[in-house]
Amino acid sequence: MIVVLSGGSGGAKLVQGLACLVPSENLTVIVNTADDVEWWGLHVSPDVDSLLYALAGILSTDRGWGLQGDTFRCLERMAALGQPTWFRLGDLDLATHLARTNLLRSGKTLSAATAALAHRMGIHSHVLPMSDNRVATLVETPSGTLNFQEYFVRERHQVEVRAVHFEGADKAKPAPGVLDCIASAEAVIFAPSNPVTSIGPILAVPGIREALCHTSAPIAAVSPIIGGDAFSGPAGTLMKRKGWPSTIAGVAQAYEDFLDMLIVDLADHSDADHLREGALHVLCANTVMKSMQDKQELARFTLHAALQARGNKS
Amino acid sequence: MIVVLSGGSGGAKLVQGLACLVPSENLTVIVNTADDVEWWGLHVSPDVDSLLYALAGILSTDRGWGLQGDTFRCLERMAALGQPTWFRLGDLDLATHLARTNLLRSGKTLSAATAALAHRMGIHSHVLPMSDNRVATLVETPSGTLNFQEYFVRERHQVEVRAVHFEGADKAKPAPGVLDCIASAEAVIFAPSNPVTSIGPILAVPGIREALCHTSAPIAAVSPIIGGDAFSGPAGTLMKRKGWPSTIAGVAQAYEDFLDMLIVDLADHSDADHLREGALHVLCANTVMKSMQDKQELARFTLHAALQARGNKS
Repeated sequence: MIVVLSGGSGGAKLVQGLACLVPSENLTVIVNTADDVEWWGLHVSPDVDSLLYALAGILSTDRGWGLQGDTFRCLERMAALGQPTWFRLGDLDLATHLARTNLLRSGKTLSAATAALAHRMGIHSHVLPMSDNRVATLVETPSGTLNFQEYFVRERHQVEVRAVHFEGADKAKPAPGVLDCIASAEAVIFAPSNPVTSIGPILAVPGIREALCHTSAPIAAVSPIIGGDAFSGPAGTLMKRKGWPSTIAGVAQAYEDFLDMLIVDLADHSDADHLREGALHVLCANTVMKSMQDKQELARFTLHAALQARGNKS
Repeated sequence: MIVVLSGGSGGAKLVQGLACLVPSENLTVIVNTADDVEWWGLHVSPDVDSLLYALAGILSTDRGWGLQGDTFRCLERMAALGQPTWFRLGDLDLATHLARTNLLRSGKTLSAATAALAHRMGIHSHVLPMSDNRVATLVETPSGTLNFQEYFVRERHQVEVRAVHFEGADKAKPAPGVLDCIASAEAVIFAPSNPVTSIGPILAVPGIREALCHTSAPIAAVSPIIGGDAFSGPAGTLMKRKGWPSTIAGVAQAYEDFLDMLIVDLADHSDADHLREGALHVLCANTVMKSMQDKQELARFTLHAALQARGNKS
């Protein structure tokens, strides 16, 4: 089993590449759910959905989120009815949230609801929410506490961040299968996701970090930092706030207790030379995934490197 | 104030006609809510919505329900996700149900939520749900109890009906304004709606029938029976089940304790002669509303007759 830890958009891209290489039933993705949000009364799991849509081949490549070819007629009507629309849900996308919310209200867990949706989308890989319990990324700003979507989408991450915490994480349990698949993985791959707000919540669920420290599987991370700053989003800013440099060294530091291998962009090759002075394997590749070929090549490079390291680690 | 008691489609047509004649703030519609249904986790009020859309000028004239020019992309995706789709909600229509459900969850009453939606749709007339309490039309059939939408939409009213009852009606209270507007009306008009399942639930809310019996306003009903049978839907069948003839005489019987005037279709003129032997005023008009002109003419005829009778009654 190849196990991927992932947030939304960057993770979805790498997983699309991996899905071309790994038999679908041998691929498990553990996904951040701390930016889940109740929107229009519906339970929206943005990262889980990006992974589902990526694996179903229906993720919008233009937007990087939501379904390709989606329309926003309901949203436009919601605006006319005076409802908030800064968080955009397409007409096709809405069906996912309506169906998930109904499954949850009928008593299903988030992982069971996710499995049901995955099945309906013809996905044979395993998409596991990190936890069935509610964990919420909260961002402390000078003007108050925001949930992640308020910070990221509504404020376009243009507000000062004083602290980030994961409400509910201390009492959360890993979803069924999460610890087992880490323990028995052939390789664990960290998608190029934000170490603070995408991977951070996963690692904050008690037991997951320990499982990563104890697995015999090689652990490889693909850096979300390119050329000394985040490829997209506020990773750099948030890493600095955590006291980590906003460079590939910061990524290494975020995962230092279990990481075997870091794949960094060619643009960071000089930073890579410094990192290599420690025990960490640092490999350079093109990590900018614009085309399907980019995704496949980075996935192949990462998978190959991780599986080669497998012999060395055990 | 002109007060209309109404179900969905037939009522919406007559109200569209009345809205051209009566200053909008002088028109109040009391609407059946006993076919409200929770669908995809949302609170849908089909009759209220038909009235709102009619008054906002956006009711689909092709379908007779929902918004004109609506699309069904979310619904098609719901089908792909294995969700039930026999009750059809369009993409624009969905916004109404999402907004209403949110308003209700935030603690608003159904009448407050309806007023908020009406305001957003630019409607100045008053659309009052019959009650803020849940009343549900239940239809007993040989194969079990169905809610109204299961009977009407899913089974296309092609199943045998053993009984109809209005669950919760005995404990329901009229929504704020309902009794007052009946008491102080210039005229009360019953839309050509099903006397059993559209008007029946309104009359089953304790206090409303009494208010109709005591108001000094003339009460005129437009018959939903044309040429000895229902213009559309199962009114005839359901009236027979109640022990009423499925003719204009049955309509008169349904409302016998308060009705002053019955407007029947020209096709029923010979039945009308028999009815006239009692105290009821029976007037003939074209009650088939195909065009906007049909709606306006029937509305004008009904309103004129009712207002003329006002002097006689008081």
